Amino acid sequence: MKNKVKNIVLLGSTGSIGQQTLDIVRVFQDKLRVTGLACGNNTGLFLQQVSEFNPKLTYCAAGARLPAGVVQTTMEEMAAHPQADMVIVATTGKAGLAPAIAALKAGKTVAIANKEILVMAGALLKQIAAQHKGAILPVDSEHSAVWQCLQGEAPEISRLLLTASGGPFFGWPAEKLREVTAAQALNHPTWKMGKKVTVDSATLFNKGLEVIEAHWLFNLPFDKIEVVIHRQSIVHSMVEFRDGSVKAQLSAPDMRLPIQYALFYPERMHNPGIQPLDFKKAHNLTFEPVNFAEYPCLKLAVNAGKLGSTYPAVLCAADETAVELFLNNSISFTEIATIIEKTLDMHRPVSNPGLEDILRSDKWACETALKEARKDI
Amino acid sequence: MKNKVKNIVLLGSTGSIGQQTLDIVRVFQDKLRVTGLACGNNTGLFLQQVSEFNPKLTYCAAGARLPAGVVQTTMEEMAAHPQADMVIVATTGKAGLAPAIAALKAGKTVAIANKEILVMAGALLKQIAAQHKGAILPVDSEHSAVWQCLQGEAPEISRLLLTASGGPFFGWPAEKLREVTAAQALNHPTWKMGKKVTVDSATLFNKGLEVIEAHWLFNLPFDKIEVVIHRQSIVHSMVEFRDGSVKAQLSAPDMRLPIQYALFYPERMHNPGIQPLDFKKAHNLTFEPVNFAEYPCLKLAVNAGKLGSTYPAVLCAADETAVELFLNNSISFTEIATIIEKTLDMHRPVSNPGLEDILRSDKWACETALKEARKDI
Repeated sequence: MKNKVKNIVLLGSTGSIGQQTLDIVRVFQDKLRVTGLACGNNTGLFLQQVSEFNPKLTYCAAGARLPAGVVQTTMEEMAAHPQADMVIVATTGKAGLAPAIAALKAGKTVAIANKEILVMAGALLKQIAAQHKGAILPVDSEHSAVWQCLQGEAPEISRLLLTASGGPFFGWPAEKLREVTAAQALNHPTWKMGKKVTVDSATLFNKGLEVIEAHWLFNLPFDKIEVVIHRQSIVHSMVEFRDGSVKAQLSAPDMRLPIQYALFYPERMHNPGIQPLDFKKAHNLTFEPVNFAEYPCLKLAVNAGKLGSTYPAVLCAADETAVELFLNNSISFTEIATIIEKTLDMHRPVSNPGLEDILRSDKWACETALKEARKDI
Repeated sequence: MKNKVKNIVLLGSTGSIGQQTLDIVRVFQDKLRVTGLACGNNTGLFLQQVSEFNPKLTYCAAGARLPAGVVQTTMEEMAAHPQADMVIVATTGKAGLAPAIAALKAGKTVAIANKEILVMAGALLKQIAAQHKGAILPVDSEHSAVWQCLQGEAPEISRLLLTASGGPFFGWPAEKLREVTAAQALNHPTWKMGKKVTVDSATLFNKGLEVIEAHWLFNLPFDKIEVVIHRQSIVHSMVEFRDGSVKAQLSAPDMRLPIQYALFYPERMHNPGIQPLDFKKAHNLTFEPVNFAEYPCLKLAVNAGKLGSTYPAVLCAADETAVELFLNNSISFTEIATIIEKTLDMHRPVSNPGLEDILRSDKWACETALKEARKDI
């Protein structure tokens, strides 16, 4: 790989992860080339990106007016394109699922930042990857940390310790949480991210998704995955091996590091824009157990992951709906959990679901969550 | 290696590391066999060990009366014995140097817990190992941590961060340090070790030796090795890679873990006697920069390492002498550094030293340190 340019297809180029991926491409122009770019509805930024990176293939869900000569196609087609060496799925919600499947069926390496698709369809994606010799790489900082800690180690591990910042409301009493506004929830203490994932971090729903994601990425039973509150977001996760030794991965909270690790794996590259940790100043790193009773969204997510089948798809859809309602001030912060729980309770699961079953469950869950929310309003 | 018994030769079996090594042999009797045992002067314990482990070869510096049929030999001979698969050098001071050389000349794998020999003769040991296809493995918890963090990574790293507990007198003012007694210095806050290394930990001289040890073990220039104060002794050291990502190794302070890692490398073994870290309770891990001005022994050691040639041998000998005088209440705690400094200042170095040069420098330094101490007394 050393002297070869890697052609990447980036799905979700205008989001937070998408923009940071392009930042890395700017630094390593001799090693990375953008073959395909896809976005949702931020057409202004997308036009700039197309003009700067000149991709062979483009897709814009909102239908941007692109300059003459720019090829427009579907996400599935660009993800499976013969020239693509790696597909980065940085879309949100379920949008990246079908393209990820197309890429894996074409035997591509797929770096997944859009954790919902692994949660909704983990079994299916892994089965397709195995069948077509595709590969799934993590981009989430926690899973990248685990992946880094596993390098050079036998796969048999005793525990995975996913760290969680605890979000902006860590330790708040229940009565205060009911009054939380969208603006408060969007103010994450350590990470700058998109709106949905920021709210999911405040409820710790996001950590629940990461538990399910880790279950699939690292072939681990749920009882070997623990969540540890670590307020400073410096230790991105830890792995305990069978001898009791623990490895941790640390860095400043900067998503470019895990993105870059996935892009160049197994090589590590020096990026002058990424600040190393400063050990000339004092650090105080705290770790404490998570109280599941305080975080109903975390508990619901992990339980849905354990149940499997179409429950995780319903989980994601119900949360997506509920978070949107919360951001629109239609429901309270604590009602997010209530709506997810009600929707999960009403679900009739389909075992060993295919893509159709998953998308049907998703649709059902969006509608049901909305109906349940309206009952309460 | 899975179904083969590993024959080990243990030099320094009655010391702290020696005893803990035999604890591990007790747990893994089907995988480890003691071929050779050597001790200094704790003959009572040595006789018990010989009776329990029934080694083919023995050596006791103090000349124990061994049962009939027990073969007595030299440390060099047992270290180079054809049946030995691995030699663990857990002696103190320079005692292990000649046997380590003999083992490496015979192409053995040598696990070094006796850091002084690597400090005194790092260049020589590495050259012999390379020439005879011997291997040097670390046993110190810090270097084992680094070694573990390096698994699966390219050798090019950007920084090594050696953690130091800071010892029992961390933050004490200079005037209070002058009054420190041997009993106080022997009360280490996190590790239970032999007397000499405990005093060396209190002065941070030990951390200086570890910097030199790391320089040789991991082929690193001194400017890439930093010392970080970490009072809790949970993070045993850290490695920063070129992308800015840092890996750390954590565990409870239990020397059996790094000993066992060296014994079974690259396999990790589950030892029911080793307690994993408990993340059900809260942890607070602190990191702060070390102030070299507060730790003259650390500064002297690192400087001697940078100077190279016979300076590190003089460093070790002067410290050994000074610590003994301190433990006998002949000099004060702060005079340890004074004596080391005076001895180093008077030394006329020999470049590219062989074993003879090193041992001659050692002898000269012991005598000189003693003379200097007597002047002051």
